[in-house]
Formats: sequence, C-alpha cells, structure tokens
Amino acid sequence: MQKFIQTTNNIIKSNERIDDLQRNGLRIIQDPDGFCFGMDAVLLSSFVSTKNGSTIVDLGTGTGIIPILLSAKTKASTIYGLEIQSTVADMAKRSIILNHLEQKVHIIHSDLKNALQHIQANSVDVVTTNPPYMKMGTGAISPTRSVSRHEIMCSLEDVISIAYKLLKPKGKFFMVHRSNRLVDIMYTLRKYHLEPKLLQCVHPFKNKDSNLVLIEARKDAGQELKILSPLIIRDANGEYTEKVYELYNNAGIDNFG
Amino acid sequence: MQKFIQTTNNIIKSNERIDDLQRNGLRIIQDPDGFCFGMDAVLLSSFVSTKNGSTIVDLGTGTGIIPILLSAKTKASTIYGLEIQSTVADMAKRSIILNHLEQKVHIIHSDLKNALQHIQANSVDVVTTNPPYMKMGTGAISPTRSVSRHEIMCSLEDVISIAYKLLKPKGKFFMVHRSNRLVDIMYTLRKYHLEPKLLQCVHPFKNKDSNLVLIEARKDAGQELKILSPLIIRDANGEYTEKVYELYNNAGIDNFG
Repeated sequence: MQKFIQTTNNIIKSNERIDDLQRNGLRIIQDPDGFCFGMDAVLLSSFVSTKNGSTIVDLGTGTGIIPILLSAKTKASTIYGLEIQSTVADMAKRSIILNHLEQKVHIIHSDLKNALQHIQANSVDVVTTNPPYMKMGTGAISPTRSVSRHEIMCSLEDVISIAYKLLKPKGKFFMVHRSNRLVDIMYTLRKYHLEPKLLQCVHPFKNKDSNLVLIEARKDAGQELKILSPLIIRDANGEYTEKVYELYNNAGIDNFG
Repeated sequence: MQKFIQTTNNIIKSNERIDDLQRNGLRIIQDPDGFCFGMDAVLLSSFVSTKNGSTIVDLGTGTGIIPILLSAKTKASTIYGLEIQSTVADMAKRSIILNHLEQKVHIIHSDLKNALQHIQANSVDVVTTNPPYMKMGTGAISPTRSVSRHEIMCSLEDVISIAYKLLKPKGKFFMVHRSNRLVDIMYTLRKYHLEPKLLQCVHPFKNKDSNLVLIEARKDAGQELKILSPLIIRDANGEYTEKVYELYNNAGIDNFG
C-alpha cells in the first residue's frame, strides 16, 4: 500500500520514511519500526460521513493518518488530532507541514483525557478513533509499539466518555475496533449516551469470522441499530474485493496495491 | 415450508391445522390466523449446540416449535417450554402428544417471570428464546398476534434475568432477535452477567442490511465475542443459499420448499 519516496529535505529523521498516500499528492511520515497505519485506518476514513464545514476530532491520532485522509475526503473546516506520544505527535505535525495542511489540521500533543483543555466541550461535529486494540493486561507487550497497540495510556471508557463531552448534541462518533470487543464497545457507548446507530462487520474472507467492526454512534440518539451488509476484504483467490477498491477511493486513496 | 395434513382425529380444533416438519415424522399444530413459526425458529434451532443429556428451557415457546425441533436435533434428556397464552400452550401440549414426545418435552402454561416456581434455579444447561420482536409502545398492535409479536407480557430484561437464574454456571443462552435490537440485547445480557460469546448476523441478501441476529451467551463467562461469518438467506436469483439448506437440515428439517 505504501511506497518509499526518496527525499533530500530534512523533514524526516533517519529512522523514518515518507509514504505516498496516492491521493491529491498526500504523503505521511512513518517509522517502519513503530506502528504504521493499516487497513483499519482506511476503513474508518471511508466509513466517516459529515457535512461541509464540520469540526472533527481524531482521538489517539498516531501519525495523523485519519486527519490526513479526512482532509481529502471531507469538506471539514477544522480537524484536530490528539496524540499522547511526543515522538509520534511530532511525526504527525511534520506530515501536516509536508502536506501543507496547517490551516485545516491541528495536531495536539496531549493525553486525550485532557482534550477539554484544548477543545471546547459540546463543540465538535464528529469524533473519530482507532483506539488501541488490546485490553490492559492482555497480550505480549512490544516496547516500541505498545502504546499504540495496548490500552496503556487510556481505556475504551476514557475514549468514549471524552468523545461524549466533545460532541455537539446529535454529534457523530466513528470507531474501528477488533470484533472481539464489540460487546465492550456497545455497552460502554450506551452507558455514556453515545447510542450505536450503524454497525458494519468486516470479514477477511466471506466464510471467515469477522476481525474488525466499524461503528457509528450518535450523542443522545434514539435506541435503534442498523447492521449494514458485511464488508468482505478478499475473494476466494485472495484478491481484494471490488468493495475494497471502492472504499479505498472513498477514503481518499485513488489506487493502491 | 409447511404442508397441510388431513386428519380425522380430534387432536386439533376447527381453526387449527397440522403442519409436517419433514423430519422424523414430526408435526406441529398451528392456527393459521395466529402466530405461525417462521425461519427465525429454524435458525435458532440450528444455532443451538448442547451436550447429550442436557436440560433445555425454551422461554415463550409459543406452539412449541423450538422444543420439537430440538428434540430431533439434540440428545437433550428434558426440554421445557414455557408459554403464557393458554390457547397457544394448549396447542403446544397437543403437538407434543401428537409427536409422542411426552417423556422428553414438557409444556408449562406459565408466565416466564414465574419460571422458578416450575424449574429449579441453577439447574439448566441451555435456555433458548425467540422473544417478541417489538418494544413495548412501538408498532401497530394486531389483536390476535400481539402477545407473540410485542413485549406485552414480558420485556427483554425479564427474559434475560430469568434465563440467568435458571442456568447452571457457564450454562448457555441462545436467542434470535431483530438486528435493530442488538445493542439492547448486548447491553442487557452483560448487565445480567450472561456474556455474549457468539454473534451471527443474518442478511436476506448479500448486499442488504441484516434483519435478524443469532446470539449465544454464557453465564458468568469471560468478555470476548466471536462474530461468525454472515448468514445470507437468498442468492441474487432469490433462491435459498446452500447454507440455508444446510442449516434447515441441521435444525432437524430434512427438506423444505
């Protein structure tokens, strides 16, 4: 999906590389030894819908992939990305500069639990998040990628309760997460009055269990869920399905391979 | 799916008919003007798994379709069906006699909220339920089918809290319900410590939203869900998919059309 681009300027450090996002000339700085964006980020960007002029906040933005993709896909006026890890937030800031998105995208180096120190409560149209996948205390912890992969710095409950506070009435919350956490997600969303309205299950193949779920919730909305047709990633030959090509385009990436 | 069978004995009333279940000679008495069993009952029976010698309770059993199908599919030793509507419970009792299942299947005419007056707490291996579809206060109420279709007599919360009390430790709970209630179901299951472990979304066609969900939960189990590959009912030509034929067999029905 990513291509290495040779560069002579000093916007990247020796351990980093610039990957071409194949859309509007957009690029992203990543550290190949750290956590690099994957299909989950593309799925989430594709799943987001919002009106022109919106304010979007991406909680736990990492290298800023979601804000960058949403800057191409939506007509949002302002996109904030909060990231707690200073080296990663710094990479994200440089990617924003590299893409000349400083007027629209603002990377904030902050614990998301302190989001209200930076962004006004009840002011946001859309909150997005691709939170750490594993519960605290589970899985092997890799030292370089652990904050992005584990709930070390924040729990699902932290993310959801902050999202509720940031959002306007009826504001929308979009999340991609592992399927095995779906009950945790739905339970916690309802607990914090972010009512799940849309669910799409992602399956690597037609006959395989789901590995990812995409969820849209709305602040203080009525209790009725719609489960969309499943998203199948690869056909029986292992090729990406037509749907995946469509949504890569929809996410703001014209071609990939 | 059902075939009308002419009969000369007086086991049925003038408004009723006997339908052949196409399995082991099993038959069921139904009132065509009342609530007749549909695909949801077949899907649920197919979804149930249990060990030999189990005790099963079907909450809100209606005409007894789930106990009858499970008597063919499983090697359960005892199956109880609780039904609050006296005329429907009476029909179910006559279907049990018609099928010579009196030794194994016991229809109890009772409000499911009083289940513990009939069945010992913490004694049951499996609870099944195909509860009323609509929330109290929603939808048009049809006088003849309203108790089967609406939560008039019991809420989702009643069904789930009683299931918890009936089940042995780690006992299994199986439910089929409308997809738009999935959040209610997951929230209520976790609230009552019946942890959802398996979810299968049922879609009428590959590219259509899900209309039904199948859920397996376990009493006091760990918090991790598996989402199975989706169940698609009909192909692009409107024919039943192979999977549906398989599960009709699995539910205890050899052929249908």
